[in-house]
Amino acid sequence: MKSDKISEAVVRRLPVYLRYLNELHHREVPTVSSQELGQKLDLNPAQIRKDLAYFGDFGRKGIGYDVSYLIEKIRQILKLDQQINVVLVGAGNLGHALSNYNAFLKDNMKIVAVFDAHTSKVGSRINNLTVQPMEELTSTIQDHGIRIGIITVPDVEAQNVADRLVASGIEAILNFAPIILKAPPQIRIHTADFTTDLQSLAYYLDNGKEEVKDAATEMGH
Amino acid sequence: MKSDKISEAVVRRLPVYLRYLNELHHREVPTVSSQELGQKLDLNPAQIRKDLAYFGDFGRKGIGYDVSYLIEKIRQILKLDQQINVVLVGAGNLGHALSNYNAFLKDNMKIVAVFDAHTSKVGSRINNLTVQPMEELTSTIQDHGIRIGIITVPDVEAQNVADRLVASGIEAILNFAPIILKAPPQIRIHTADFTTDLQSLAYYLDNGKEEVKDAATEMGH
Repeated sequence: MKSDKISEAVVRRLPVYLRYLNELHHREVPTVSSQELGQKLDLNPAQIRKDLAYFGDFGRKGIGYDVSYLIEKIRQILKLDQQINVVLVGAGNLGHALSNYNAFLKDNMKIVAVFDAHTSKVGSRINNLTVQPMEELTSTIQDHGIRIGIITVPDVEAQNVADRLVASGIEAILNFAPIILKAPPQIRIHTADFTTDLQSLAYYLDNGKEEVKDAATEMGH
Repeated sequence: MKSDKISEAVVRRLPVYLRYLNELHHREVPTVSSQELGQKLDLNPAQIRKDLAYFGDFGRKGIGYDVSYLIEKIRQILKLDQQINVVLVGAGNLGHALSNYNAFLKDNMKIVAVFDAHTSKVGSRINNLTVQPMEELTSTIQDHGIRIGIITVPDVEAQNVADRLVASGIEAILNFAPIILKAPPQIRIHTADFTTDLQSLAYYLDNGKEEVKDAATEMGH
C-alpha cells in the first residue's frame, strides 16, 4: 500500500459518497442518515459510519450527517478544494468522450491540455482545447503545473505514454488502456478498464436463482 | 447488500486478478505467489489470500497459485464461462469507444446491439453493428437474450433509458452517466463514472509530503 493512512477501499468510496451528497445538497436536503446512504449506495450502513469516522465524528445520533459539512470535509480529504490540472493523452473516441465530460469541471479538476502522437489528430479541437503534438508534452505539463495524466491511447502505446508522463513530472495516472502499466512506486496509477466493471456485473446476473445457491453450497458457503 | 455470498469488494477485485493472471498466462508463467500478485496489483498479499480462499484452497505454500487453474476458477465464479450478451444505448463518442474495445470480445462477453434515440445516429455503423432505433430495444433484448445494458447517453436521458432496459428484461446495468439511477432492487447497477476514479487519485497527490502528515495529525491519526 502506498498510503497507510486511509485504505484504498475507503478512498475509492469517498467520491461515491460525495456524488450522492452533492445530489442531496442540490435537492436542498439538509441531513442524511447512514441507513439512507447505505440503501442508496448499496453499502452496509455500519461500513459507511466506519468510513466516515476515519475523519472525525461527523454524524449525530438520531439526526444523521449534516450534508453540507460532510461535502466540505470529503472535499478537503480528497484535496478537491485545490485546483488540479489534468492532461489527457489520446484524442480518439474515448479521449473525446472524457474531454466533454462536464462533471469534471466541478471540484476544480480540469483537463487543461490534450495530446496525440498522430499528426492527423494534432491541431484538431476538442472542447475548446487544441490537440498538441507529443513533443510539447513535457513543457506543457511543467508550464501548467499538471499533476494527473489520463491515458486513452491504444494498448501498445500506453506504456510509452506512461513513461513520458512520469518523466515529465506527473504524479498520478488514470489509465484506460486494458494493460497493467509499470511506473515508479511513488506514482499512483488507477486503471479504469470498464471490462472489469462488466465482469464483476456478470457475477450478479444469476443472483437469487437456484443455480447460484447450488454453486455456493458446493463451494462450502 | 444484494448478495451476502461474496462481498462486493471481492467481486470487484476478481476481474483485476483475472486480468493480471491472463497476462501471466500469455507470458507462459505457470505459478504466482500472493506476494507477486500483491506487488503488481498494489494490494496486501494477506488480502489476496483471503479473497481467493473464499472459493477454496487454490494456493500451495512455497509454490503459489497455479495460474491456469486460478484463471479457470475465477472465470467460473464470475460466470465468464457463459456467453453473455450486452446491449449499449448511446452511440456518441463514449459509445463508439466502448464498442471498439477489443478486450471485450474475450470471455464470451459481447456487445451484440447498439441503440440511439437520435435519428441522426440510427443506421450508422459501429464496429460491425448498425445503430438501431429505441423502438426496437425490447424485441432485440428478448430475441438475443441480452442480460446486461451499458448506458452511455447524456445525464438527462439516462434514467429513462434505464427504465426501458429494466422493462425489457435486462438484469444488470453499467452506467456511464454521472447520476445515480433508480431501479428495482434485483437489478444490479454499477456506475462507471470516471470522475470518481480521478477524485480518488487526487487523494494520493501529495502523498509523502509534509502537509499530508500535518493534516493527518490534526485529524487525530
